[in-house]
Amino acid sequence: MDSEQLIQLGQQLRVDAVRAADAAQSGHPTSSMSAADLAAVLLGRHLRYDFGRPDHPGNDRLILSKGHASPLLYAMYRAAGAIDDEELLTYRRRGSRLEGHPTPRLPWVDVATGSLGQGLPVGVGVALAGKRLDRVPYRVWVLSGDSEMAEGSVWEAVEHAAHEHLDNLTLVIDVNRLGQRGPTRHEWDLGAYSRRLHAFGWHTVEVDGHDVEAVDTAFNEARSTTGRPTAVIARTRKGRGVAAVEDKEGMHGKPLKDAGSAIEELGGPRFAHVEVGKPAAAHSSALLAARNGKLKLPGYEKGDEVATRNAYGEALAALGAARGDIVALDGEVSDSTRSQFFAKEHPDRFFECYIAEQQLVAAAVGMQTRGYVPYASTFAAFLTRAHDFVRMAAVSRAGINLVGSHAGVAIGEDGPSQMGLEDLALFRAVHGSTVLYPCDANQTAKLVAAMAEGEAQSRGVRYLRTSRGATPVIYGPDEEFPVGGSKLLRSSDDDQLTLIAAGVTVHEALRAADMLARDGVPVRVVDLYSVKPVDERAVQEAAERTGCLVTVEDHHPQGGLGDAVAEVFSDGRPVPRLVRLAVGNMPGSATEQEQLSASGIDADSIAAAVKLLAEKVIVR
Amino acid sequence: MDSEQLIQLGQQLRVDAVRAADAAQSGHPTSSMSAADLAAVLLGRHLRYDFGRPDHPGNDRLILSKGHASPLLYAMYRAAGAIDDEELLTYRRRGSRLEGHPTPRLPWVDVATGSLGQGLPVGVGVALAGKRLDRVPYRVWVLSGDSEMAEGSVWEAVEHAAHEHLDNLTLVIDVNRLGQRGPTRHEWDLGAYSRRLHAFGWHTVEVDGHDVEAVDTAFNEARSTTGRPTAVIARTRKGRGVAAVEDKEGMHGKPLKDAGSAIEELGGPRFAHVEVGKPAAAHSSALLAARNGKLKLPGYEKGDEVATRNAYGEALAALGAARGDIVALDGEVSDSTRSQFFAKEHPDRFFECYIAEQQLVAAAVGMQTRGYVPYASTFAAFLTRAHDFVRMAAVSRAGINLVGSHAGVAIGEDGPSQMGLEDLALFRAVHGSTVLYPCDANQTAKLVAAMAEGEAQSRGVRYLRTSRGATPVIYGPDEEFPVGGSKLLRSSDDDQLTLIAAGVTVHEALRAADMLARDGVPVRVVDLYSVKPVDERAVQEAAERTGCLVTVEDHHPQGGLGDAVAEVFSDGRPVPRLVRLAVGNMPGSATEQEQLSASGIDADSIAAAVKLLAEKVIVR
Repeated sequence: MDSEQLIQLGQQLRVDAVRAADAAQSGHPTSSMSAADLAAVLLGRHLRYDFGRPDHPGNDRLILSKGHASPLLYAMYRAAGAIDDEELLTYRRRGSRLEGHPTPRLPWVDVATGSLGQGLPVGVGVALAGKRLDRVPYRVWVLSGDSEMAEGSVWEAVEHAAHEHLDNLTLVIDVNRLGQRGPTRHEWDLGAYSRRLHAFGWHTVEVDGHDVEAVDTAFNEARSTTGRPTAVIARTRKGRGVAAVEDKEGMHGKPLKDAGSAIEELGGPRFAHVEVGKPAAAHSSALLAARNGKLKLPGYEKGDEVATRNAYGEALAALGAARGDIVALDGEVSDSTRSQFFAKEHPDRFFECYIAEQQLVAAAVGMQTRGYVPYASTFAAFLTRAHDFVRMAAVSRAGINLVGSHAGVAIGEDGPSQMGLEDLALFRAVHGSTVLYPCDANQTAKLVAAMAEGEAQSRGVRYLRTSRGATPVIYGPDEEFPVGGSKLLRSSDDDQLTLIAAGVTVHEALRAADMLARDGVPVRVVDLYSVKPVDERAVQEAAERTGCLVTVEDHHPQGGLGDAVAEVFSDGRPVPRLVRLAVGNMPGSATEQEQLSASGIDADSIAAAVKLLAEKVIVR
Repeated sequence: MDSEQLIQLGQQLRVDAVRAADAAQSGHPTSSMSAADLAAVLLGRHLRYDFGRPDHPGNDRLILSKGHASPLLYAMYRAAGAIDDEELLTYRRRGSRLEGHPTPRLPWVDVATGSLGQGLPVGVGVALAGKRLDRVPYRVWVLSGDSEMAEGSVWEAVEHAAHEHLDNLTLVIDVNRLGQRGPTRHEWDLGAYSRRLHAFGWHTVEVDGHDVEAVDTAFNEARSTTGRPTAVIARTRKGRGVAAVEDKEGMHGKPLKDAGSAIEELGGPRFAHVEVGKPAAAHSSALLAARNGKLKLPGYEKGDEVATRNAYGEALAALGAARGDIVALDGEVSDSTRSQFFAKEHPDRFFECYIAEQQLVAAAVGMQTRGYVPYASTFAAFLTRAHDFVRMAAVSRAGINLVGSHAGVAIGEDGPSQMGLEDLALFRAVHGSTVLYPCDANQTAKLVAAMAEGEAQSRGVRYLRTSRGATPVIYGPDEEFPVGGSKLLRSSDDDQLTLIAAGVTVHEALRAADMLARDGVPVRVVDLYSVKPVDERAVQEAAERTGCLVTVEDHHPQGGLGDAVAEVFSDGRPVPRLVRLAVGNMPGSATEQEQLSASGIDADSIAAAVKLLAEKVIVR
C-alpha cells in the first residue's frame, strides 16, 4: 500500500471506530483514533497473518494491550475481511463476539485484554515460545497505551524481554498524552519512555504516530533490529481527526456526540479491503507432537515421608520426559518448589522468570496460546501477586497449570508473610478453575499428570497446592485420583461425624480419628483432594450417613475447603451440620506442629472439637 | 563512630545474625551478613531514631524490604539497646516478637515485610506523608535486596518516587549477587541498576558495600541530594566474613553449619552499644488532630436514583472536610470511582498514583503508619492487582480503607475484564478484614464514615464495594448502618424463605419479593450490607423463621455472600436449607439488565428460582 492508501486506511479505521461506538452508544472511539495510523501501517505493510487460518504456525501475533480500543481492532478485522460491516456494528451487544474488550471468542484474539499492563507480559511469553520452543520467526506486536506504562507488570516484562534478547517482539506505545481522567504522568515526553526502555536494554524509536511513512520506517527498524526488542514510541493525539474531541480532556470512553458530522469530518465511510501479508510457510513445533508414550511417574513407598513439593518436581520432570509440550516456569524459587528437577532434565523447556510473579503467570498464558502446557510454580502466598493475571487468564480461556508451594501455617518458622492462607479462596473464585490439594506423594504425582491430561478436555486455570514439610505416603503408587474425586479413608457403621480434610490436615484428621476411635467415638475421614470440582456425591453420602461434616483446613476460614463443602448444599437440599476448623488466628513464628496446634487444626485440636460436638451438639 | 568502630559494629551484627540463626536452627544469616556494613554505617552515623519513643514524629523510618534478613535488623536493635541478648536468641521461637520476617509486633517495625518488592512502595507512602502531610524532615531508609528489583511493584515505586521528588527517601540496594536459587539476573553489574534508576529520574551512587567510609560518603550524598530520591547501590558479598559460605551458592536461608568457628572467624561475640542519633524535635502533623466536629454527610432523597460510587465520593469529600487525617488515593480512575469529589475539595490530601495498583495500596499502607486514614480506590477488579499488598497489610495490622467500584456484571457492556467478580472472596479471606457492600446512597455515606471511625477501635483492612449504575435510594438519610449489622426489608409471618442480598441484588430481591407476594409466595428480604463481619443474629433468626436462605450476589459463587451466610452455620448448629444465586457464567458484553438476567440474579430469575424451591424443595 502506498502512503495515500495508508492514510485513507487510517481514516477508515477511525470512521469504523466512531460508527461502532455510535451503534453501541458506548465504548472507546477516541482511544482508537489516536492509534489508527499505527494500526493502518501495521496492517497494510508489516503484519503477516492469515485471517483464514488463525492457527497458522507462521502467523505474527497482535496483542491489543490497550483493550478498551477494541473498536480499532474490530475495524482492522473488517478492513482485512475477517468480519463484515454488519458484525462490526454489533459491537458491545449481547451475544456479539465483539465485546467491549477483546476476548478469544474471536479466533484472531489469543488472549483477553482490558486489564491494562498485561499485553506486554503475555507478549513476552509468546515471543519466548517463538524463539525457544517453536523456533519460527513470527513477530509479536503489542500495541500499548501510554497510561498503562505505569503498571509494574510492564516493567517486569521490559526487563525480561531484554534479558531474553527477544528481537521478535515489538512494543508500540500509543502516546496520546491523555489517560482516563486527565494527562498521563509523562504526557508527550517520548524521551521519558525512551530513556527508561533504553536503560533496560531495548532499542527504541521515537516517531510521529500520524506520519505513516515515519511509522513504516520505525516498524522496519524494529523488524531489522537483532539481539534485543524494540519499542516504537509514537506521539499521537487522542480523538485524532475530529476537532470536537481531538486532544481534549473528558472524552475518554464515550461515543462521539455527533457521530454523523464526525464521520463526515473524517471523510465519510470507506470500504477499502486490505490484503494482509501472508505468513511464510512454517511447521508447528515438533515439541507439540513429541510423545514417547511412556509416562513413568515416580512411585513412592507407603509409610515413607515425602514432601508433596518433591513429588511435584519429580512428577513434572517425568511428564516432561514423556511429552515435548510440557514447559516449566519458575519465580526464582525452583529449589523450594522443586521445579528444579524439571530444570535439570529439560533445561530447554525451563524458563526462569526471576522474582516477577506477574511475568511468571503471563509467560505461561502466552505459551499456552502456542499449544504448550505450562506449569508455573512459586510459593502459594506469592501467587497472590499475580491474581489479576489469573483472573484475566480465565477470561482468556487459557489452559495453564499453577502450582503454589509452602501452603499454610504448616511451613513453620518463616511466619505469615510466606504462608499461603488465601490461595484456595483466590483460585476457587476464578471462573472455570480446577483446585487440587494432595496430601501424599503418589497422589501428587497422579494429579500433576492429570493437570496435563485435562488440558485436552477443557481449558481453564488449574491450581495445585503443595506443602513444604514431608508427610507420610498413605496411598500406593497405583491408586487413581480423578479430578473431582475424593478418598474415603476411615469409615464404620457407627461414625458420629465426618472429618473432611486435604493436604497436611488429612494426616492430622487420620491421627484424630484413631485417637477418637480408641475413645469410642468413631468418625469417618474423607480426603477431599479435589477442592474444585468437589466430589459432591461423596460429600452428600457422608452427610447422609453421619449427619455432620467437619472440615479441617490449613487456610483462612473463608473461601477454602469449608466453603467448597458448604457449596455442595447450596441448591436447597437438606444441609447436614457443618463445622469449620481453619486458621482463624494471625500466625507468628513457631514449629510446624506448634503452628497447627495454635491454629486448632492438629490432631489433638480436631479430637477435642469432635468430642465437644459429640457431647453438646450432635443430635442423631 | 570512627571507621574502626563501624567495622567492628558490622562484625558484631554478623556475629549476632549467625548466633540468632544458630539458636533457631533456621533463618537467613548469609543475607544478613552481606548487608551488615551498610547497616552499621546507617545505625552508627545516619539514622535518627529514638528507640525509646518509636512514635516520635521526627524519627527516621527504616524499612527492611529484604525481610528475610531479619536477624540483621534484630542485631541492630540489640546494638541500639532496644532488645537484650536474651531476646535476640528467641529468634523464630513460638511467642517471640522476633519472627522469621519482621512484623509490627515490634514497636520499631512500621510494616511487615517478607514478600519481596514491598518495602520501596510502602516507603514511598511514608515519604509522601513526610513531605506533603507531616512536613517533617525525617528520612525514609529502605534496605532492599537485589533479587527483588525484578518485582514490578519496585518500578511502580521508582517511577512514583521520582515523579513526587521524594528526596527524603533513600533506597539502599544490597547487591550480593546471589538470589535464593542462584545468581541474580544482573549479578554484580551495579551499572544495570544504576542506569535503570537514573532513567527514571533518581540520583544513584555505586559503592563497595563493605567499605564503611565509602558507604558513609554515599549516605551523605543521599541526604544532601535535593529534588529527587537517591539509590545507594552497594556491591556486597553474601555470607561476607565466613569463608565457608561467602559468595557461595546453596547457602541461602540456612543456619551456618559450624556456627562456633564462624563466630570465631568473625572475631567472636561483641557487645558494643551504639548511641543512635536522636531525631530533631518535631511536632505531630496538625492534620492528625484537625477535627471541626461537624461531619455533614450528604443526604439523599428516598426514591432518587443515585450510584453508590457517587455517594462514596461525596461522603469522602465531606469526611475530609470534617477531619484533617483523611487522605484519598487514586489509581487514575477518580472520575469513575468518584474520588474526584475529594480531590476537588482537598487537593493537598489527594494522591494520584496513576495506573499502579500495587503502589496505590502500598502508599495507603505507608500513610497509615503516620496516623492518617487513607481511602484508596480503583475498580474492584483491579484491586486484584494488589492482592499481595492487601495480604501483607493484614500482617502489618494496617488500618486502610480500600474501595472498589464497578462491581459485578451490573457494569454492563464493558465485559468481564472490568467486572469485580472475585473481590468479595479476596477481601473476606484476608485476616481481620471488614467487607461492606451498600445498596443505596445513604447507606454508602454512613458506611464510608464508619470506616474511619472503626480506625480508632481496631486495625485492619476495610473494603467497600460500590456500583457503577444508579440504584434507588431506599433508606432515609438518618438511618444507621452499624458495621456487622443488616436490614430486614420485607417480612411477614408467612414467609416461605429469606432472600439475602447486598448491593445491586437488594433491588432485584425487593422486586422479586413484590412479584412473589402478588403470587401468594411471601418471602423475607434481608440487606446484608456488612458481608464481614456478618450479622449472625439476623441470619440465624431468618433461618429459624423461614427455614431456607437464598443468597443473591453479583459475584462468583465462591467466597462471597453465599459463603458468608454459610459460615454463620459452621459451628455445628442446625443449618437451614441454603441456596446460592450467583454469577456462574462467563459474562460477555450486554446491558446491565441483560447481564443480571443472563447470570440468573435479576428479579425474574430470583422469583422463578423461589417458585421452583417452594414447589419442589421446601418442606416446612
